[in-house]
Amino acid sequence: MSTLIEEARDYFLGLQARIVAQLEAVDGRVFATDRWDRPEGGGGISRLVEDGGLFERGGCNFSHVTGQQLPPSASAHRPELAGRRWEAMGVSLVLHPRNPYVPTVHMNVRMFMTFAAPGSMELDAGWCGGGMDLTPYYGFEHDARHFHQTCKRALDPFGEQWHPRFKRWCDEYFYLKHREEARGVGGIFYDDLNQPDLEGAFALTRAVGDAFSEAYLPIVDRRRSIDYSERERDFQAYRRGRYVEFNLVYDRGTLFGLQSRGRTESILMSLPPLVKWRYDWHPEPGSPEAALYSLIQPRAWV
Amino acid sequence: MSTLIEEARDYFLGLQARIVAQLEAVDGRVFATDRWDRPEGGGGISRLVEDGGLFERGGCNFSHVTGQQLPPSASAHRPELAGRRWEAMGVSLVLHPRNPYVPTVHMNVRMFMTFAAPGSMELDAGWCGGGMDLTPYYGFEHDARHFHQTCKRALDPFGEQWHPRFKRWCDEYFYLKHREEARGVGGIFYDDLNQPDLEGAFALTRAVGDAFSEAYLPIVDRRRSIDYSERERDFQAYRRGRYVEFNLVYDRGTLFGLQSRGRTESILMSLPPLVKWRYDWHPEPGSPEAALYSLIQPRAWV
Repeated sequence: MSTLIEEARDYFLGLQARIVAQLEAVDGRVFATDRWDRPEGGGGISRLVEDGGLFERGGCNFSHVTGQQLPPSASAHRPELAGRRWEAMGVSLVLHPRNPYVPTVHMNVRMFMTFAAPGSMELDAGWCGGGMDLTPYYGFEHDARHFHQTCKRALDPFGEQWHPRFKRWCDEYFYLKHREEARGVGGIFYDDLNQPDLEGAFALTRAVGDAFSEAYLPIVDRRRSIDYSERERDFQAYRRGRYVEFNLVYDRGTLFGLQSRGRTESILMSLPPLVKWRYDWHPEPGSPEAALYSLIQPRAWV
Repeated sequence: MSTLIEEARDYFLGLQARIVAQLEAVDGRVFATDRWDRPEGGGGISRLVEDGGLFERGGCNFSHVTGQQLPPSASAHRPELAGRRWEAMGVSLVLHPRNPYVPTVHMNVRMFMTFAAPGSMELDAGWCGGGMDLTPYYGFEHDARHFHQTCKRALDPFGEQWHPRFKRWCDEYFYLKHREEARGVGGIFYDDLNQPDLEGAFALTRAVGDAFSEAYLPIVDRRRSIDYSERERDFQAYRRGRYVEFNLVYDRGTLFGLQSRGRTESILMSLPPLVKWRYDWHPEPGSPEAALYSLIQPRAWV
């Protein structure tokens, strides 16, 4: 079973390297590298950019963390696994472009494993999770459709049931209940996947990771040269407040990371560089800003 | 017992009116007024300012909300009260000045009551909570001492045990575990107070509310004319990120409000107008920014 862990580690590290190389090419700036260790076991490599040519702030992080005893909170829905030795690894990415016409994007692929006995390498359970979602400010239906279609193309070889299921899961997960608002135009989200088996779930997860660049980079290419003014920057900063609210109030990965004493600065790389809050603000009906609120109403994009 | 409710309502409404009048006088701008109803019962009056002469964003909110059945989450530590009819009222204030030499401040006073029977006005339990805390960017020991001394002077007539207890409670409550950092220089915080009885707890709570202006306004007066540049504004925006992290990740009032479908815009008036996040940033040793990190180390201020 250690072969699968090594294979997964190689895959995730390779994915991070490939994506960062592509992002550096579109940004024009070399991403910084931060390696960190976790006192309880494992560590990670954060790759990040601030004040880049395209990205105002962004990161693509690899982490592989291990523990001797699965905490009860992590195994609430699998009580039989409490106390097991565990390993978790994956790649997590959030990019906040400066140009308000280029959407913010998030992608995450991960694998979680528990082991039969304290010193054992014998896997007794494992599952994968992941997804990606797009958060435009001044959005385009064409881009949303392209993003969703790319997700669907990545998943369909594994069974046509997955895309509708993971698309709905994404709409439900990236939802701000206190605003009754979606975070963006969605994408896909899934967790606890071990079907048909862990190897199969990992194969599907690789397909999701591999599809990221094709899902996002053509959108960057199409929108990065659109001119913008203070008005668009202002609306972008306001809408980024929703991103902060979602990540700090609802996002399980963020809250689990902060509560489990993960590496705060790597976890909070997802937060935007410049954010504004304004009381009870609503866009003018018919304005480009109002159009966003229609665009993010969940709908069938493919 | 309805006399106490009426008395509390009159007090909280009067406190809000008095504080807002004083804040308008120092700001130069009339605060807006927003009245709102809660479908499940009760409502509130939000008084707020944005782009004021002194305050970049701030609010002083009164709310009085009622329910037919106390939710289990609200009564976890008082299981005997689950399902009771309840009322909660209070005043909550957060002010974010534009000048980075003027600290952000928070104050809250509240009363919570449960009733013996669905239609009954007969109180079966009640308690008070409240406090105030100061969050400087470029801080002054003199100001921190004045703020703490004013809190102590307000509490001492009710017994000298309260100030040390509520001061420590404040240090523990307004603490960002994931940063291992205090939110600011503290102040006082308390909850679940019904000693010697509800009337006594309410009298103490009135003293806290009444002390706010004396605790904060002299600091505003002393610091509002200090010149500042982009450097100070930048550090203020960065530190305001901590305020957002605390309020959205830890603050019970905020999370309870959002989860219980409170009025989102009134709850999130506590968030600053303009905020920045920056990766793994640390102040230069010896700089004025580094001085803040020493100032906010919890200590005996009085």
